[in-house]
Order: sequence, then C-alpha cells, then structure tokens
Amino acid sequence: MRLQGKKVAVFIEEGFEDLEFWVTVMRLREEGAAVTIVGPVADRTYPGKHGLTGKSQVAADKVRADDFDAVVVPGGWAPDKLRRYPAVTGLVRAAYEQGKIVGLICHAGLVGISARIVRGHRATGSLGIKDDLVNAGAEWVDAPAFRDGQIVWGRVVEDIPDFCRELVQAIAGAQI
Amino acid sequence: MRLQGKKVAVFIEEGFEDLEFWVTVMRLREEGAAVTIVGPVADRTYPGKHGLTGKSQVAADKVRADDFDAVVVPGGWAPDKLRRYPAVTGLVRAAYEQGKIVGLICHAGLVGISARIVRGHRATGSLGIKDDLVNAGAEWVDAPAFRDGQIVWGRVVEDIPDFCRELVQAIAGAQI
Repeated sequence: MRLQGKKVAVFIEEGFEDLEFWVTVMRLREEGAAVTIVGPVADRTYPGKHGLTGKSQVAADKVRADDFDAVVVPGGWAPDKLRRYPAVTGLVRAAYEQGKIVGLICHAGLVGISARIVRGHRATGSLGIKDDLVNAGAEWVDAPAFRDGQIVWGRVVEDIPDFCRELVQAIAGAQI
Repeated sequence: MRLQGKKVAVFIEEGFEDLEFWVTVMRLREEGAAVTIVGPVADRTYPGKHGLTGKSQVAADKVRADDFDAVVVPGGWAPDKLRRYPAVTGLVRAAYEQGKIVGLICHAGLVGISARIVRGHRATGSLGIKDDLVNAGAEWVDAPAFRDGQIVWGRVVEDIPDFCRELVQAIAGAQI
C-alpha cells in the first residue's frame, strides 16, 4: 500500500482507451491511493474505445491542482477531446507547475502538448502523435515507459504494466 | 518486480470478464511474472463479456501443473465453459495438489468446484454462485478478497485491486 494518503486525478472522456484507463485506476487503488475520476462534466458515463464504460465523479473546473498529488491522462481518443477544455489543460499545467507527477500514456501526450508542459522533456506515446510531440519541443523516445522529471510516459496498451510500475514508483517517491 | 522468475497460467474462454482478465494479467506482468494464457485450444481469440478480446497461447491439454507456480481463473461467463474441459479442471486440481497458488475471482469458483478443491475452504465470488460453493463444501464469506490456504479469492470486478494485491503477495511468498 505504497500510495496510502495520496490523491490522484484520472481524466475521462468519450473514447478513452479501456485498459489504459481501468488498469491504471485499479492499480492506483490497489496501492491505497484515493482516485478521483475527472471529466469535462460530473456524473457522466463515458463509453471507452472498445466497449467498457467509466463515469466521471467531478468536473475539471470544480477541482484544483492543490487537491491532488498526481494527475493521469489515459489514452485512446479521449485526449483529443480533453485538450479542448481549458479547465483540463489548466489543471494539468497547474499540477505540473506545482511539481506534481503527471502521467501520460499513448495519445495522452496531446493533452501534455496543449497544457504546454512537454518542451525539453523526453517523451513517448502512440506513433500517431510522434510528430506533434517533436513539434512541441519534446524529444521522441521509443521505449515502453519511463519517467522524465515530473512526467511519467507510457507508449501503448501493451506497455501498461511498465507504465503502472513507473507511475506508482513516481507518486510514492514524489516530493510534493 | 516481486514475481521475477514465477510462471503463472491464466485461463481464457468466451465471455471472460474483461477487467478481471486483463487487469490481473497486466498486474502479474508488472511484477515480472511470465504469464501464459491457457485456453481449451491454442491461438484462438476469445471475446470478453463487454467487448475486449484476449488470445489463448496454449491449449490446456498441452501444459502441466509442473510448468507453473500459480494458476488463475478470471470470472465472467468463461468459468461456466472452462469447467466442462477435463484438461482445465485437471490442471487446476493438479496445481492445487502440488501446493501451487490458485486464484479464483467472481464466477471462477465454478472451476474450483468442478476441480474439487473448494471443500473446507473459506470462499467468495459472485453472489450467483454462492449456493454452489456452499453445496460443494465451502464456507461463504462476503469479503472483497482474501487468501485461504493456497486459494486466493476475489469477489467481483470492483474488488480487483484487492484481489491483485492478495494474489501477488501469495505468489511472491509461496513455498513451492
């Protein structure tokens, strides 16, 4: 139970990658973290990319970075939608500026780009966003998962185990 | 990486509970375990209960309990099918008789019943199989997850984090 007392926001929107969302949420809960599912609006059930569902607990504009030790964005098509909400990108940027851990896997780098936190960082994710990460000033790395500063990166679905290991370790050891 | 060097069989069949299967598989891989997906036949892609898929790597009649440190049966409708294969129940029973860890969540108790390993054990799972577990000689316990002897029990999907914590701990500490 390495994350007892830690508070983590996990974002949700339509088309989230089912396993990147659910495995991460359950992994954080296994370690005792208090996970809050944050969406553009509260209490909405969103369909995942492959058929599972998940429900937002709070709206992004009703919480602050101070409320959390870490923020995590799963991949799928959800990041394309999440990045359009200033409340979402503002929350991610504020968490980053406060030195909190930011977890980004697969297409989640899109939210990192729009939150303007990726410049100068090593980064990975879906090949589909490689050019966008590079154009935003990140250095593309083809690796399953790693931590670079405050950001924990994961590549694709198959890399979820590595992403979760890095993420749990980062949040457990984070100096907040 | 608490399961480095450990070999775990996870069973699959049509209608497996998507998260009980995938979260458990990824959790075991995170700890470095070598996970083998075992089905009635090899190389078949099975649909989960809610839309995800998973592929068997080997057929149950082509592996032996000696090949594994633990066997895990996820829930969903898959256990109703898996219990009909003597190669599956035989593998579970042999693993049990060899003192290996057996993980059973949700409807997976059905496979435990047909493998004749539940008598005298505390047990949990889906409420839908409570009577069958009791009739098979188990003591029903309404708890998220626990270990009783060699068997690690999980109740339902929401209890996956607790089930995984107990399962990893049991396999890591198992005297084989």
